[in-house]
Amino acid sequence: MITNRFEHPLNEKTRIYLRVESLLRQLQHSSSFSDNYQHQIFFKSLFDLLEIFEQIQLKSELAKDLEKQRQTYRAWLNIDDVDQEMLGSILGDLDSVHRELMGAERFGQSFKEDRFLSAIRQRFGLPGGACCFDLPTLHHWLHLPIDKRMHDAEMWLTSLKPLMNALHLWLKLTRETGRFKPQIARSGLLQSEAEEANIIRLNIPMHYGVYPMVSAIRAALP
Amino acid sequence: MITNRFEHPLNEKTRIYLRVESLLRQLQHSSSFSDNYQHQIFFKSLFDLLEIFEQIQLKSELAKDLEKQRQTYRAWLNIDDVDQEMLGSILGDLDSVHRELMGAERFGQSFKEDRFLSAIRQRFGLPGGACCFDLPTLHHWLHLPIDKRMHDAEMWLTSLKPLMNALHLWLKLTRETGRFKPQIARSGLLQSEAEEANIIRLNIPMHYGVYPMVSAIRAALP
Repeated sequence: MITNRFEHPLNEKTRIYLRVESLLRQLQHSSSFSDNYQHQIFFKSLFDLLEIFEQIQLKSELAKDLEKQRQTYRAWLNIDDVDQEMLGSILGDLDSVHRELMGAERFGQSFKEDRFLSAIRQRFGLPGGACCFDLPTLHHWLHLPIDKRMHDAEMWLTSLKPLMNALHLWLKLTRETGRFKPQIARSGLLQSEAEEANIIRLNIPMHYGVYPMVSAIRAALP
Repeated sequence: MITNRFEHPLNEKTRIYLRVESLLRQLQHSSSFSDNYQHQIFFKSLFDLLEIFEQIQLKSELAKDLEKQRQTYRAWLNIDDVDQEMLGSILGDLDSVHRELMGAERFGQSFKEDRFLSAIRQRFGLPGGACCFDLPTLHHWLHLPIDKRMHDAEMWLTSLKPLMNALHLWLKLTRETGRFKPQIARSGLLQSEAEEANIIRLNIPMHYGVYPMVSAIRAALP
């Protein structure tokens, strides 16, 4: 059965995390510059990320969330029926991405100091603003050998590695916390409760030809 | 010798025309949806075009400019040494694209009436805003069979055909009006005059590793 996977964040922070994950994926995919227009996706994703970095303290938020996960997993140490080897490996991963994250520059710092990126960022957002007369530096760069361009892309991506690794691990552990269960939305409606959940994940059979509209509210404390 | 072609518009209208041409080219290129991210370029170009349509009366501007070109070429009718067959063919093309343009809907009208496009346009511009939870309709559409998606794209592109043909002809005639001449920018500087020109075109040998910074001013009338 072909299904269509939807994910819905249950809080603002997770919403940002999922957006950043999607932008990082686009960035990596387009960094091969394998067709004439992939650079558009590459730079659009890069500047979208920069905008997010300017809006929220992504690094410290993520560090806090990793720490929270670490506490949760530590509580399972020396508990019977818990696979201690697996637990040790997860805790090791958490330690290492957390350390890498804390040692990283402020996200986007090196992009802001990059004269080429700063120069093209200003006009890139204009409708059709990536023309050669708007951005002669970009146009020139696009005519450089592919090796040089991929090298530049690699350099920009490297500075995002600590973010990628931390975000990837946090999302992986968050996603793997739950299990898929069959649910039926009678008359197209389904209401449910979830404690301390960050993401709702839905696999919807394609042949229904439907997509979900999810709304989540935080229930008032009793 | 490998050269890098730069074009620089000499007035605001030509600037818009060149941007629109570049967006239309991106739109056509990405309408095959041949990789997972081309839809990003497709919709980004489409919404950029819509923004331009909302800002200027592109249709009437273009009609006026085609009319001006028609007058110029008509003045050459029955003049010796002018290739009358070629001239007749150009005038025929001008008549036909002008007629098609005048018969077209207001640019972008059908996009605005399209519920799907209107729904995704709102959030598409957000940084990372094309995630499934932001745009479930888009996410669902992306999982439809490629035939259906290409059919939709074809339909949207069809409404832009009169614009494409008119713009293509105007730019073609404008570009072919001049001829490339060797020029040397001593100490990197070149100043020149151009009467009634719309575009400066430059072919710059790649091995110089340079790109041009063009600035144009309209000289005061005596």
